[in-house]
Amino acid sequence: MSLATGERDLSTMLRPRSIALIGATDRSTWSKATFTNLTTRRYDGTLHLVARRGGIVHGRPAATSCVALGEKIDLGLLMVPAAAIEEALADLGAAGARNAVILTSGFAETGHDGATQQQKLAELARRFGMSLLGPNCLGFVNFLDDVPLWTGAIRAPSRPGPIAVISQSGATGGFIASLAQQQEISLSHLISTGNEADLDSTTFADHLLDDERVRAVAMFIESIRDAHHFAAVAQKAHAAGKPIIALKIGLSDVTARSAQAHTGSLVGDDRVFEGVCRQFGIVRVNSIEDLLFTAEVIRRTGVIGAKGLGLVSVSGGACEIAADRLQLDGVPLPPLPDATAKALLEVLPSFGTPHNPLDITGGAVLEPELFAKALKIMGHEPAFSALTCLFEVPATEAQASEFIVAALRQISLGLKDQPLPALMISHTLKPVTEVTQRIVSELGLPYVPAGIYHGLLALGRAWWWSAQQRREAPNWTAPAASKGPKEWPRTERQVLDHLARHGVPVVPATLATDEAKAVAAARRIGGPVVLKIASADIQHKSDIGGVALNIEGDEAVAAAFHRVMTAAPPGAQVDGVLVSPMRERGLELFVGCTRDPQWGPVLAVGLGGVFVEVLQDVALRVLPITPTEVRCMLGELKGAKMLEGHRGVPRADLDAVAVAIARIGDAAVALGSALDALDVNPLWVRGSHVEALDGLAVARAA
Amino acid sequence: MSLATGERDLSTMLRPRSIALIGATDRSTWSKATFTNLTTRRYDGTLHLVARRGGIVHGRPAATSCVALGEKIDLGLLMVPAAAIEEALADLGAAGARNAVILTSGFAETGHDGATQQQKLAELARRFGMSLLGPNCLGFVNFLDDVPLWTGAIRAPSRPGPIAVISQSGATGGFIASLAQQQEISLSHLISTGNEADLDSTTFADHLLDDERVRAVAMFIESIRDAHHFAAVAQKAHAAGKPIIALKIGLSDVTARSAQAHTGSLVGDDRVFEGVCRQFGIVRVNSIEDLLFTAEVIRRTGVIGAKGLGLVSVSGGACEIAADRLQLDGVPLPPLPDATAKALLEVLPSFGTPHNPLDITGGAVLEPELFAKALKIMGHEPAFSALTCLFEVPATEAQASEFIVAALRQISLGLKDQPLPALMISHTLKPVTEVTQRIVSELGLPYVPAGIYHGLLALGRAWWWSAQQRREAPNWTAPAASKGPKEWPRTERQVLDHLARHGVPVVPATLATDEAKAVAAARRIGGPVVLKIASADIQHKSDIGGVALNIEGDEAVAAAFHRVMTAAPPGAQVDGVLVSPMRERGLELFVGCTRDPQWGPVLAVGLGGVFVEVLQDVALRVLPITPTEVRCMLGELKGAKMLEGHRGVPRADLDAVAVAIARIGDAAVALGSALDALDVNPLWVRGSHVEALDGLAVARAA
Repeated sequence: MSLATGERDLSTMLRPRSIALIGATDRSTWSKATFTNLTTRRYDGTLHLVARRGGIVHGRPAATSCVALGEKIDLGLLMVPAAAIEEALADLGAAGARNAVILTSGFAETGHDGATQQQKLAELARRFGMSLLGPNCLGFVNFLDDVPLWTGAIRAPSRPGPIAVISQSGATGGFIASLAQQQEISLSHLISTGNEADLDSTTFADHLLDDERVRAVAMFIESIRDAHHFAAVAQKAHAAGKPIIALKIGLSDVTARSAQAHTGSLVGDDRVFEGVCRQFGIVRVNSIEDLLFTAEVIRRTGVIGAKGLGLVSVSGGACEIAADRLQLDGVPLPPLPDATAKALLEVLPSFGTPHNPLDITGGAVLEPELFAKALKIMGHEPAFSALTCLFEVPATEAQASEFIVAALRQISLGLKDQPLPALMISHTLKPVTEVTQRIVSELGLPYVPAGIYHGLLALGRAWWWSAQQRREAPNWTAPAASKGPKEWPRTERQVLDHLARHGVPVVPATLATDEAKAVAAARRIGGPVVLKIASADIQHKSDIGGVALNIEGDEAVAAAFHRVMTAAPPGAQVDGVLVSPMRERGLELFVGCTRDPQWGPVLAVGLGGVFVEVLQDVALRVLPITPTEVRCMLGELKGAKMLEGHRGVPRADLDAVAVAIARIGDAAVALGSALDALDVNPLWVRGSHVEALDGLAVARAA
Repeated sequence: MSLATGERDLSTMLRPRSIALIGATDRSTWSKATFTNLTTRRYDGTLHLVARRGGIVHGRPAATSCVALGEKIDLGLLMVPAAAIEEALADLGAAGARNAVILTSGFAETGHDGATQQQKLAELARRFGMSLLGPNCLGFVNFLDDVPLWTGAIRAPSRPGPIAVISQSGATGGFIASLAQQQEISLSHLISTGNEADLDSTTFADHLLDDERVRAVAMFIESIRDAHHFAAVAQKAHAAGKPIIALKIGLSDVTARSAQAHTGSLVGDDRVFEGVCRQFGIVRVNSIEDLLFTAEVIRRTGVIGAKGLGLVSVSGGACEIAADRLQLDGVPLPPLPDATAKALLEVLPSFGTPHNPLDITGGAVLEPELFAKALKIMGHEPAFSALTCLFEVPATEAQASEFIVAALRQISLGLKDQPLPALMISHTLKPVTEVTQRIVSELGLPYVPAGIYHGLLALGRAWWWSAQQRREAPNWTAPAASKGPKEWPRTERQVLDHLARHGVPVVPATLATDEAKAVAAARRIGGPVVLKIASADIQHKSDIGGVALNIEGDEAVAAAFHRVMTAAPPGAQVDGVLVSPMRERGLELFVGCTRDPQWGPVLAVGLGGVFVEVLQDVALRVLPITPTEVRCMLGELKGAKMLEGHRGVPRADLDAVAVAIARIGDAAVALGSALDALDVNPLWVRGSHVEALDGLAVARAA
């Protein structure tokens, strides 16, 4: 269980008026670095040094304890060895501090004993009413308010900005900041949360979303401690129109092992996290580069309209590379409508061709005005909802040739005052030097030097995020704790009845206890029927011969009744045989609900047969879900085309399917905390005829 | 048809002793840039200027024509307008030049008329015995021999090196060089081939592979002009142990349109090119960054052994990001064997855990020697075939802290004299500054500042390329031109016979012309049979009811015979009914051979049903292919797991399947130039029982 619940006021943590460095010593690289940061980077609060033996540290007198300081402290940074940490934390608490940051390692990341130690720290902090960051973290930097409480060298962009970075791993946080510096992507905060004994990254995200100066939150996540809080924060971000961009590890088994060793995190099921991202509009990325560039691109574009991208370049090759990328990244590149093509023909050189993407050709070398002219025309084309020009700003004065400078001036003119988000993206990833920065700021260029690859990937994510922002808010709340039904549905009939009670259409079925009743039931149904053995003791009926398919005629029904009844293994309690109409020539879906240890009930849907069994082609969400959400899930399936109809099976009525699946989710939730699994396999679909043909519910071992 | 065939001696093109700039003028940016490049970048041949009106150009006297120079010229660069180009080319030819480079645009890229004009240029060049580069190109740089014949600013690394860059697009070539400069990846050549009227990029690759100073060829490809030459060059590279790395566009329709407008290229079927890359060991990449970093990584590692990677980092977060990447990139990360884990335990701090990837922890800040110790131990672990340390070299003096410098020194020691390829990769993509370069060269660091994402992607490709190098050489030659069989196999029976003649196992089938013969045939077979109408006029037998499946017993066979016979549409010539044994409970593969306009006969294999129809899950190769190659193809299928057995179908005998498919390829090749399609659908597989159940051959319209 996480100790961090709900919103926490972290104002004094992130903006302390006084800080004590506890365990300060000239022998420690960390102590020196932190002292240097706080004294040279404009921190304007009071800084105290505490060292057990007192004396002079970093050229200043140090107190022997926090209590001995005789002053209230807002925040203490503990750098003492693990063995001395409890005493130091108690001293800090006794001195009335409200916030503790623990650098020290050797807790949950080392195994069970360390975890117990860490638990004690969290309890101690709680007893004193302190918020606790760490242990095993590197501190934080609040760039907006000049609080550089970081225990290493700070690499940071020249100006504070709107992007908050939260990283469980301190070193990785450092790498992110270092890249932000190199690319001049301005940050609001850099927070390393380490082992998260108390405050976790979700709690910081929650707090920072309330700060109007923060426009995007970029997170490096090893594990989510409080899944439902994370879902709430994601929805808060959606409502605020601020993207959360997540680099989350956990794909590989090796990673899971490694994360355990690193910050004591249990890495959750990656497929569930992937589903959560789609459900709550969290932008997931695969690299540190993409984490920052995506935040930066969305920060610049805001919500982009649903139409396509207009792209302008001076290189045909770049146009082609970009077009291939955009296809993969899901950004439409609409063809040029005639009027705009005609307008472009009038400005392009004779050997140019008006297309989207638009190659203005090497003619721009002779006539840089081509850039502005073409961009103005492209930007006013109603088929586009965003505009991008590929070009780059020099890194050195030597590279700033006459043509380059003239071209940049024209691009700046062309991108200015456009009625749609307009960016200039470099061809390859370029660092931002002082020369770059000067030119960018002089010309006011909306420059993203991420290169075509990362820049368009980020644009593709901005496109996806924009679509999520246009959707109605998820409005999701975790299911209330419930014990579930008084009687657990054990037999297939009971499961189908349970499903039906929650609005799931189920196949009609009659329980026949003798041959005559089976024949009568089959006659009532008319046409071919299915007979299945009815027994709470038998879960896999087909495997033992307990199912007879496609039976027609009294004699055949009677024979099948006996065949199926005698299939029961000795000792099984048999209720009889279920007789149902045979459903054929339909699409068969698999719908499986299970309990995720972090997220609670989740629902997976896939197409039957090889799609689930061989390709593991399923979409996943946390419950409850709406039919609208189910429609998104169906669209994610690799085999989605099957839903359009295939080999005599008509197109599926997606609305009807979506409602049925959402109801299955409700039925799973209704099973309460005892739910281990609720499978509907198959959910049969023929046009708008949707029916659960079989169901199985498994309760958790008590 | 391409004009470039076979090997060409490009020595005087790439190393001319004299150059004429034709159309030189002070008003042209290109002319000025080229003149500056040749006069300031150490070109030591003779440089002539030719301008129609003579006079002083770039401060030198210009001749009015090449002939007027009265000297033999090795190479002429033509920068005259399109209208004057023929005359200028003829003048150059008359002056005895052997090589022409044409910058001028406005040829095949503008459409049909331009293509005709371009064709004329190529013929003119041929008449004079000149090799022609361009038109619509930016020239080339031979870094190794100091020939900077480039018509724009040259961005280049400080030293020449072993990687040749060939780009159809001149501007894109420039972007590649610019990135190489930023990352200090040393190049041997930069060649832009433009419209490739005569010399194409394949011809340059062919030539450069003979240069022992060139160790890798990186290509930006819009289209392949001579597919078989390309295949030959790829095999030459394989034999030489030099990788070809290809960034080829053509994924999207938009790209195809765009490439046509750009250099007049017809972009081929991307799936065929993908198959070709796999078949001939060409490393395909998706970005300019990956093009260069992959070349650089393979250049450094050479062929890597088949075992796993050992990875060392000072950050747990980086370890996790890396582990996730490596899983996706196909690089194994073996767990640490006990002895090595034990050895590491002795050097790691108490809170460290010996794993692969190895987080040596922040303890390295106090004890940088940890790097060298850990790397030495990891490098000597026999489970690894390559070693990587994640760390980076500062960009500025200010970043070069005491710890960083000490750590780098230790990493350098730890990576030196290892028995396996050992690299240091940065956490994010970092430019190489002068400070970086100085440190790298002082410490002799094998540094790849590509970042985890691009660095490990490149390592994954190095891994794949190494596996290709370990495989036997493809030894592929294009099928000899042939007219094919005297009589085209029109009926199913004829197709199956054709297949059988080429060693494909086919299902036995008897042609029955009356009911009695059908019954007799079914009796001989025993068990259930299939009856199919036999008619060269009917291609889709099932659709019209011309197939009866699973028929057993004399009466049923007789009835089916009549049913099938009467299914023929009026006017169809019917030979009778084919009677075959019914094949069930097997895997059904689809094998389709078609003719690619560039590559000739190609073969696609996929699993039957939804795999091909819905998922388009096929692997593709150019014919002929060996059974070994087919095994690789089967392994590429998303549904490959099906071959291991599924739902009562036993595991397929892959050797038997591979031989049968390779033979189907032979049968397709034997159909010669008339082949439009040869489909075997299904190829039925049950264990080692493999049979073509149905076949269809379609001839090209005459």
